[in-house]
Amino acid sequence: MSSAATNKGARTRELIVEAGHELARRVGLDGLTFGTIAAEVKMSKSGLFAHFGSREGFQLAVLEHAINAVGDAVFAPAFAQPRGLPRLSALISGWLAFVSGLDRGGCVVLAAVAEFDDKPGPIRDALVGYQHRLRRQMERTIQMTIDAGDFRADADPAQVAFEFYAVLLALHHDLRLFNDQQAVARTAQAANHVLQRYLAEPRQSAAIG
Amino acid sequence: MSSAATNKGARTRELIVEAGHELARRVGLDGLTFGTIAAEVKMSKSGLFAHFGSREGFQLAVLEHAINAVGDAVFAPAFAQPRGLPRLSALISGWLAFVSGLDRGGCVVLAAVAEFDDKPGPIRDALVGYQHRLRRQMERTIQMTIDAGDFRADADPAQVAFEFYAVLLALHHDLRLFNDQQAVARTAQAANHVLQRYLAEPRQSAAIG
Repeated sequence: MSSAATNKGARTRELIVEAGHELARRVGLDGLTFGTIAAEVKMSKSGLFAHFGSREGFQLAVLEHAINAVGDAVFAPAFAQPRGLPRLSALISGWLAFVSGLDRGGCVVLAAVAEFDDKPGPIRDALVGYQHRLRRQMERTIQMTIDAGDFRADADPAQVAFEFYAVLLALHHDLRLFNDQQAVARTAQAANHVLQRYLAEPRQSAAIG
Repeated sequence: MSSAATNKGARTRELIVEAGHELARRVGLDGLTFGTIAAEVKMSKSGLFAHFGSREGFQLAVLEHAINAVGDAVFAPAFAQPRGLPRLSALISGWLAFVSGLDRGGCVVLAAVAEFDDKPGPIRDALVGYQHRLRRQMERTIQMTIDAGDFRADADPAQVAFEFYAVLLALHHDLRLFNDQQAVARTAQAANHVLQRYLAEPRQSAAIG
């Protein structure tokens, strides 16, 4: 195949994956089929098959895209901040904004956890791997906050990461099920409560909002 | 129909619902069909139809059963405790034990939230109604803890309930996705952190374990 044709193929694949990501926000990764996406992108099912090999291959491509979206929107800006409290605050604030701003639907990754946690296979494996990496990244960011002297030396990074993650799960839950916009302010307050518990020197102003 | 026949019919219905609840722990409420349950209970699909009218009617009956299971295991024992900290501690401890003891599978209600939060219909309506009632019950239990002088007078029951609920969601998440038994100890610690934040008089011993 010529290089131009390869580029065109890669771009078409990207457009299909983006459409799949938008659709998955509404119907979940589990709700994606070649039938539903074929209508969205005006392609034949056999054309889709040629790009992804299988429905599962397509779902995995959409999951990877959704994971990268969290990385671009939340992790990249946070990691541009100095190590310690500035980076950790940016990470939690950015994540809160990301989950609360998903007004076209939910977070495909968080929704997929609930859909696939009881379904062994490549999608569950990909999710477990990603969620483990994400938690380790949170823990490293928290360890740096301890090393910088911003957090108490006796703070356990795994415990702190668990407590922050809990708050983000509850935000997703209350926004999706109750459509309760108060959940955004409650989450910021809850995240600040976690932060205050571990600060080496308590301070009055909220770092997360 | 004779009274004996009615009783027999009610008992048969109950047994089908119990089998449906066990199955839903593994495949989710969304995975329940007359086809799958027919094999489990050795009945015909038409026999099941006569009991429940529709697949959705069956799913709603299983959801009600799962909700009652939480009530019996968690809320009833807690509400036998005196108002205030004893009742609130019993509620959170019992809930933690309930979620962490679900070794045959997950909590059908929590899993159903993720399955149905984007699917309008009677099952989603039932879930929203139940989760609202449950949060209100938590809030009333917290208000009583404030009124008893155990919690600070400026504590916001909705905020406190959100923070406790977040921790339980994270327990369910980590047990189901990571099969991480450390999550149980982390959850107890996180719940005690929430508790300590709101206690009128800080104390050393953990109330939740």
